[in-house]
Amino acid sequence: MKQFMDENFLLDNDISQRLYHDYAKKMPIYDYHCHLNPKEIFENKKFDNITRMWLAGDHYKWRLMRQNGVDEKYITGDATDYEKFEKFVQCVQYAAGNPIYHWCHLELRRYFDVFDILCEQNTKLIWDKCSKKTFTPQQLMKSSNVTTICTTDDPLDTLEYHGKLSDFTVEVLPTFRPDKLVNIHKPGFTEYIAKCNINTFTELKDFIKKRLMFFIDFGCKFSDHGLDYIPFELGDAEDAFRKALNNEKLTPKQINAYKTEILLYCAQLYKEHNIIMQLHFGALRDTNTAMHKKLGENTGFDSINDLHCAANLAALINEMNGNPKIILYSLNPSDNYTLATMTGNYRDVRFGSAWWFNDQIDGMTEQMKAHANLGPLNKFLGMLTDSRSFLSYPRHEYFRRILCSILGRWVNEGLFPKDYSILGKIVQDICYNNVIEFIG
Amino acid sequence: MKQFMDENFLLDNDISQRLYHDYAKKMPIYDYHCHLNPKEIFENKKFDNITRMWLAGDHYKWRLMRQNGVDEKYITGDATDYEKFEKFVQCVQYAAGNPIYHWCHLELRRYFDVFDILCEQNTKLIWDKCSKKTFTPQQLMKSSNVTTICTTDDPLDTLEYHGKLSDFTVEVLPTFRPDKLVNIHKPGFTEYIAKCNINTFTELKDFIKKRLMFFIDFGCKFSDHGLDYIPFELGDAEDAFRKALNNEKLTPKQINAYKTEILLYCAQLYKEHNIIMQLHFGALRDTNTAMHKKLGENTGFDSINDLHCAANLAALINEMNGNPKIILYSLNPSDNYTLATMTGNYRDVRFGSAWWFNDQIDGMTEQMKAHANLGPLNKFLGMLTDSRSFLSYPRHEYFRRILCSILGRWVNEGLFPKDYSILGKIVQDICYNNVIEFIG
Amino acid sequence: MKQFMDENFLLDNDISQRLYHDYAKKMPIYDYHCHLNPKEIFENKKFDNITRMWLAGDHYKWRLMRQNGVDEKYITGDATDYEKFEKFVQCVQYAAGNPIYHWCHLELRRYFDVFDILCEQNTKLIWDKCSKKTFTPQQLMKSSNVTTICTTDDPLDTLEYHGKLSDFTVEVLPTFRPDKLVNIHKPGFTEYIAKCNINTFTELKDFIKKRLMFFIDFGCKFSDHGLDYIPFELGDAEDAFRKALNNEKLTPKQINAYKTEILLYCAQLYKEHNIIMQLHFGALRDTNTAMHKKLGENTGFDSINDLHCAANLAALINEMNGNPKIILYSLNPSDNYTLATMTGNYRDVRFGSAWWFNDQIDGMTEQMKAHANLGPLNKFLGMLTDSRSFLSYPRHEYFRRILCSILGRWVNEGLFPKDYSILGKIVQDICYNNVIEFIG
Repeated sequence: MKQFMDENFLLDNDISQRLYHDYAKKMPIYDYHCHLNPKEIFENKKFDNITRMWLAGDHYKWRLMRQNGVDEKYITGDATDYEKFEKFVQCVQYAAGNPIYHWCHLELRRYFDVFDILCEQNTKLIWDKCSKKTFTPQQLMKSSNVTTICTTDDPLDTLEYHGKLSDFTVEVLPTFRPDKLVNIHKPGFTEYIAKCNINTFTELKDFIKKRLMFFIDFGCKFSDHGLDYIPFELGDAEDAFRKALNNEKLTPKQINAYKTEILLYCAQLYKEHNIIMQLHFGALRDTNTAMHKKLGENTGFDSINDLHCAANLAALINEMNGNPKIILYSLNPSDNYTLATMTGNYRDVRFGSAWWFNDQIDGMTEQMKAHANLGPLNKFLGMLTDSRSFLSYPRHEYFRRILCSILGRWVNEGLFPKDYSILGKIVQDICYNNVIEFIG
Repeated sequence: MKQFMDENFLLDNDISQRLYHDYAKKMPIYDYHCHLNPKEIFENKKFDNITRMWLAGDHYKWRLMRQNGVDEKYITGDATDYEKFEKFVQCVQYAAGNPIYHWCHLELRRYFDVFDILCEQNTKLIWDKCSKKTFTPQQLMKSSNVTTICTTDDPLDTLEYHGKLSDFTVEVLPTFRPDKLVNIHKPGFTEYIAKCNINTFTELKDFIKKRLMFFIDFGCKFSDHGLDYIPFELGDAEDAFRKALNNEKLTPKQINAYKTEILLYCAQLYKEHNIIMQLHFGALRDTNTAMHKKLGENTGFDSINDLHCAANLAALINEMNGNPKIILYSLNPSDNYTLATMTGNYRDVRFGSAWWFNDQIDGMTEQMKAHANLGPLNKFLGMLTDSRSFLSYPRHEYFRRILCSILGRWVNEGLFPKDYSILGKIVQDICYNNVIEFIG
Repeated sequence: MKQFMDENFLLDNDISQRLYHDYAKKMPIYDYHCHLNPKEIFENKKFDNITRMWLAGDHYKWRLMRQNGVDEKYITGDATDYEKFEKFVQCVQYAAGNPIYHWCHLELRRYFDVFDILCEQNTKLIWDKCSKKTFTPQQLMKSSNVTTICTTDDPLDTLEYHGKLSDFTVEVLPTFRPDKLVNIHKPGFTEYIAKCNINTFTELKDFIKKRLMFFIDFGCKFSDHGLDYIPFELGDAEDAFRKALNNEKLTPKQINAYKTEILLYCAQLYKEHNIIMQLHFGALRDTNTAMHKKLGENTGFDSINDLHCAANLAALINEMNGNPKIILYSLNPSDNYTLATMTGNYRDVRFGSAWWFNDQIDGMTEQMKAHANLGPLNKFLGMLTDSRSFLSYPRHEYFRRILCSILGRWVNEGLFPKDYSILGKIVQDICYNNVIEFIG
């Protein structure tokens, strides 16, 4: 029996152990997709306590508590920080097989030097031990060996804090995410367009270009599109745009013609300016209207959707012809094999790492196995946190251990030669080098 | 090498063995979804022989025989019981990896004290040994440590035998399954409505309410809806109902508006009366018209369907607003991760156990891993037989062994602490306590 | 640690080893679905070098090279054969977890007696060693213990070379693949119809019948249909055909009515003449228009599609009523469980082996586990190469090792008895006997 989460956590044999300890561990972190707040990084305030760090904004943990029947008062309500921590521990102690269980213990170990197990009896002990350690966002990022993070930003963002952080040793780069310009069918579209001072389709295109150039001035290397589904329709986008501004009801064809053209236009700009285009799809968001009204977006009421993606995705990428660099992420793991076969059709299309709900041992393993079965795993771009928390860098450790475990298992079973010059390179490329090479 | 199906069947290590033998085994069975016939329980007739017990109504076994090319005469035809048994043994002896192989051997061991292996040479031997043991339905249920079963019943059912069984030590409770009232698009709808003496939409709603109250008088705690697909359409249900009674052809929109409103109406009643709402979907039934005409429903000609469910399911549950307790089951294992993410959006929505074709080692394991990866496995409602056979309680044993095996493996690999106070509680809650708590 | 790809490659324990070495290995190969060129077999020319054998037509390897960023010059361009080999080795050496890695090493060992590992340092060494061995197609087929291959042929094919090969010790049989007659919606349909001298719907049906009979004269036992999706529509196919010949635009309903009727008509003929009907679906082909124009079809720009199949497939098979023998293959592994449940509904419907992108350890394992979980694995028709390469028979070895590994693991874990009379029969039936029995 292996000890619980010891130094060889997730590393089954001596090959995977050597790969992790000698090759993976020391690689820096280039966290190319996250949701950290640059203002918080700049202001660099000490966190009051573990509840503020763990439970203030983490909808993964909120869901777990709700699924355990905890009253909302102790989740997003007005209970004290200690009460919230107490309730959380009561839940997490039973969360066998859930990544939150591992993340929490990794964070306690790596940041707080706490090796006690999260369980009811240890609540006070862990709270007190954690209270003795205080951190700021910048400390956490530096101590985690992070070279760069890419935040996720609206085109209208002033990037004020990205600018102010130019002296910080960790690069904090903006990511261009023009979802509000794409989602013509959603409430708030015309208001957003008005806020951007856009009156015509030409002005819209100019706006996109100008704002992208502004982002690039701040070091932007990635864009991101969160798509409810993959649209593909060639049609009169300008007409659809005009109708939308006139508050006319659009047909699905018109909506999709607009979305397709904007995506193609963005793709063209990305190509010209060497910006990587991330496409995220497969999420079904805000499924609980009552709670959405109360708490807003990203509060833990999202699901995995199950729409078709293959045909439209292939058509869209094909239409981009001389396409930009693209990374594909679907929230539905049933899409893994489809996405893995999209990457070979065009040279610069990659299959992104297991996303959100899939960010667990099985999800990451399945994504990497699909990647390896259908192409070169050694070219995989590796992990990103996608996180709102400054404590989440151990997810890179988690990922790296799983990667080394998969490779070590193959070698141990006689499926791949025990050649560390090859294996070590695969590991280090996936951990860090590939994303640097892909950025170019 | 482990011995074939010994006492540690499916239990890989000492942790899983201890969890099963010390915690799981002794828990009673609350079989909250089955298709047993209460009349047969009440009449309590001795079974003539093993063919009558195993092969008289079990379409899992019929399919296996057909897939082996056995003539229908030996399946549902007029061959003798011994001939049928002979043919079945000839097939099952090769059914490596199939759950029927394990179920049969478990049943021979637990009920007949027969430890011989099902193979051609042992046919006569096993037939004879089994013939020496005779059982009645009530004996089988009592000896299996069953406290309660919930049968599946039409709203028109008189529940006569449920009433007559009120003194039987095992609770036999009805489940309200109003599929015939929901399926407005299916042949027989108007005839069924006429049989219920319903003339108007108001009478329809009254009928549903009255019959549900009648079921509740007999201890009903669960309802069940078998849905061909998940409908969601807000529209004029009453108009659709009127048209259907006039034998007018309905549009899909009208059909779905009707179905949606009836489901929402039922959900409201369930909420008021603390009835759990089960939603079963993803089946494609009666795919062989010729055999359906000959043998009727549930005779082994059903498949797994592959329709979208996520968006409508989320919308339907959202519309139920202040929703009843719901358990979701899809027959398509590709829906596992989608369903697992539905459970966190509303507090009282649960992800039901692996259903029907998924009721095997891989299917149950994948369902539990999806459950654990995306939420608290410790809150899982656990197993039900869904069975037409009085011999199927060892499927609970099968499930429990798999559950203990998963947990034991996690501990053995250092992924969860070896703390039996936590592990034992998880096991016992899933085996029995959670469903009791969920019923409330 | 197991040695890399030793004699017990993929065989974890002594049971699987015995099953492979004593039962599987010696079975002949009946390769009932491939894309070999009978002209090349007949002409039987020596291959110039390993690049010609490995890289001249293998789009699996081309994709791997493209995904590694290799310039097209070294893939399908005018680089020298040695340069192409060099580039391929540079890629494949890192392809951990990819089946190409294993296939290449198996081919080096089985055909060239080369046991060196494919890596940059060994490029020249392996090239030179391979250059010392020369082969012809016929030698390769005979030395691989192949009794029969079934090629894939257009109805218009003269089968000249099939005829000329009648004396060759390996049977080379044609497969009837009338896709161009089915795909009424695709460019080139009317030209193809004209080429066949077909003017009316009756002539179309006559043509199909006549050509099928011609194929049967050459020993044809299998047909094959590559379907973009599963159509099912009962309607006026003749009218649709007439419109298509007049270059009128068809509605989806008309297209599907035509396709459905042609498939049903073919099925009827297959039934009458004991021809097995293969249905392949789930591919999304030629997704890169620019490269398609340059290189044509089957050059490595295909993906896995994600359309619904269940309902139409069930309806189509049901409509075939007294159906022919059918083998179902979907390229999307998410369809595995759906397909496995189609096989029980009609007696002569089988679930075909893992196809194309799924032809790897995980894909084959999952297909066999789905098969076993839902039916009799012992009746599985087993492996086919689906290959364009004369070197691909070791894929049968790969498959057989995986099969024996699965069975051996079950026995080792106590899930199936260690009875070699049963296990050995299962293995040999799947390797060879079942397909012979299915042909009848």
